[in-house]
Amino acid sequence: MISETMCGLGKESSVIRAIFEYGRKRAAEIGAENVFDFSLGNPNVPVPEDVKKAMKELLDCGDDVWLHGYTSGNGDAETRKAIAEDLNRRFGTVFRPENLYMTCGAAASLKICITALCEPGDEFITFTPFFPEYRVFVETAGAKLVAVSTDPDTFQIDFDRLAEGVSEHTKALIVNSPNNPSGVVFQEEAIRKLAAFLEEKEKEYGHPIWIIADEPYRELVYDNSLKVPYLTKYYRNTLVCYSYSKSLSMPGERIGYILVPDEAEKAGDVYAAVCGAGRALGYVCAPSFIQHVIARCTGQVSDLGVYRKNRDLLYQALTDYGYSCVYPDGAFYLFVKALEEDASAFCERAKKHELLLVPSDDFGTPGYVRIAYCVTTDQITRSLPAFRALAKEYGK
Amino acid sequence: MISETMCGLGKESSVIRAIFEYGRKRAAEIGAENVFDFSLGNPNVPVPEDVKKAMKELLDCGDDVWLHGYTSGNGDAETRKAIAEDLNRRFGTVFRPENLYMTCGAAASLKICITALCEPGDEFITFTPFFPEYRVFVETAGAKLVAVSTDPDTFQIDFDRLAEGVSEHTKALIVNSPNNPSGVVFQEEAIRKLAAFLEEKEKEYGHPIWIIADEPYRELVYDNSLKVPYLTKYYRNTLVCYSYSKSLSMPGERIGYILVPDEAEKAGDVYAAVCGAGRALGYVCAPSFIQHVIARCTGQVSDLGVYRKNRDLLYQALTDYGYSCVYPDGAFYLFVKALEEDASAFCERAKKHELLLVPSDDFGTPGYVRIAYCVTTDQITRSLPAFRALAKEYGK
Repeated sequence: MISETMCGLGKESSVIRAIFEYGRKRAAEIGAENVFDFSLGNPNVPVPEDVKKAMKELLDCGDDVWLHGYTSGNGDAETRKAIAEDLNRRFGTVFRPENLYMTCGAAASLKICITALCEPGDEFITFTPFFPEYRVFVETAGAKLVAVSTDPDTFQIDFDRLAEGVSEHTKALIVNSPNNPSGVVFQEEAIRKLAAFLEEKEKEYGHPIWIIADEPYRELVYDNSLKVPYLTKYYRNTLVCYSYSKSLSMPGERIGYILVPDEAEKAGDVYAAVCGAGRALGYVCAPSFIQHVIARCTGQVSDLGVYRKNRDLLYQALTDYGYSCVYPDGAFYLFVKALEEDASAFCERAKKHELLLVPSDDFGTPGYVRIAYCVTTDQITRSLPAFRALAKEYGK
Repeated sequence: MISETMCGLGKESSVIRAIFEYGRKRAAEIGAENVFDFSLGNPNVPVPEDVKKAMKELLDCGDDVWLHGYTSGNGDAETRKAIAEDLNRRFGTVFRPENLYMTCGAAASLKICITALCEPGDEFITFTPFFPEYRVFVETAGAKLVAVSTDPDTFQIDFDRLAEGVSEHTKALIVNSPNNPSGVVFQEEAIRKLAAFLEEKEKEYGHPIWIIADEPYRELVYDNSLKVPYLTKYYRNTLVCYSYSKSLSMPGERIGYILVPDEAEKAGDVYAAVCGAGRALGYVCAPSFIQHVIARCTGQVSDLGVYRKNRDLLYQALTDYGYSCVYPDGAFYLFVKALEEDASAFCERAKKHELLLVPSDDFGTPGYVRIAYCVTTDQITRSLPAFRALAKEYGK
């Protein structure tokens, strides 16, 4: 009568969302200040002042048809020009507006890229731990998601495992650095090695193996000397999926882009397939007002200082209490080893201390919890006794 | 290497878009005032003043996390409540926020509904003439589009033809009234007859046959006594797809909704499938700022007086000149019989008079042209000599 697959996806309330809803209920019972909800990756810092100013100025522009009317399907030309110039300034690239396709955020970027590339029998690879929606996007496009384990101590690429995962069916590899949920960043040496490995595999199989670079956390790195390599400079067949959700603190506005570099194989066809996929999926254009805002605000980033402070405070405290956790260079998550084998059981025990954590099973790396520290520093400070008490229960 | 289907969809520049691009080029050559572009359905009246005021007030609300943060996947609860109340006030219905799912506009609404319902072997019916993207949305969901001809003189439902088109494979019927491109409205008697027909067919085949009511033009009717029937009141298995693009003159903002009424068969499962389809297609939530605007502005409609004036002026003049055209009760299109059999050849000849019209072939009713009159009344006035000269070439 209806699609069982879609019904199932709708009913299977995301674990993260279910914890968040529990938190709201619990807050109503015992007061919001007594519940320590670390479940959602919802930025809690303000939108940059210059961006807010640009919004107000645009509303006064006097041309509603331009401001709120359709843009081209691939995005407003002025917006794409501003983004290309900003990328070129930051990364020494030579992108043109024609390399960019504006989207309704990172999820749309990913789904459009996967749909544009996907043929029957295809496999898409991702490294563990990974954002659970990758599986949904890939499987509902008719392809298979192959999760390749990373080094269990560092969450860095294990090239032997990768070699086992790649086959003639591999269409693309989704790379998410800084990573949700581990906070790990793949640095230049790893990227060079990855590019060389994939180039060899492309030759072996006689077809492109794409990198889909999922980059919503690109600007969220906390060590000024740390560079997040821009992947198109290392590997020609790279498609970049970007979102302004985290960098401008506006995840609800659904704005991002796909970048198809000129040097990609049959770049024109790939760009056309991106346009076709956007059309087939019902994306007419990215929201116009926010596109015009972006045109005026490239290079702006929210004040991310609070995230760095939160990371340092929480990482230090948790490791002091006996938890183990890979040091996160970026994003706004700690990925902490659960103090018993079953992460869900551990999260249930944490709940008794009013700590709301996300078990890692859906991220493809069992036995961990994800702690989203995009909350107030005050919430973190007040939660520390609970984290300490929880560790003590496990004899730490 | 990539999806040929998606590449093809991307390259096959929509006919409408191609004409629009030609118009821009031509305007640069001979001046915009000398080109009469009637190709695009892009509203040209301002956003209502109260809506603009609500936008400014919201930007000053001081809570960026609420204003620009994620809403629930099915939409902001306050927004859905306001919409349900507005519908109940206008149509005497008893909808609740739980019946509504916020979307990124009409195309997203349609694609999500089709994906939610679609099983292998399904057929989706629509009446001719129809919006060409229906074919794209249905076929890329893996189903077949069955175009059922309407009465050639009135574009009203031909129930004999419909009976030929419906089969055990029919999953849904897409109804678009007021219609793009004909402007025709299906009135109460036709809707009652349609509902009775479909109920009988549901019994015969033992499964629901859905109506997908595509309603972006609901408010665009120009005779105050004319009622556009609200389909859920006539047929239980109706899903309503709405968009604010035309009623609020903001097609670029991508905001609309899907309504799943309680009385629909297995309404809970259908709503879940809608949520699942939205998730699978990469729609995380509808844009948040505009959702909050809608919550404050239900019931607002742009000043549509200019469209009525344009319709009256153009319909009167063209019929005087010898063109034939069904009287359009709504939307902002005239669907005019081409003065030769081949509508594309007719459009080429119109181009010589700087008249940019859209041939009807992709709408499933060959031999017509679509004239979008959502332009300035001045453009219409100035274009009339060209329409007259064109008719004279054909001996009218």
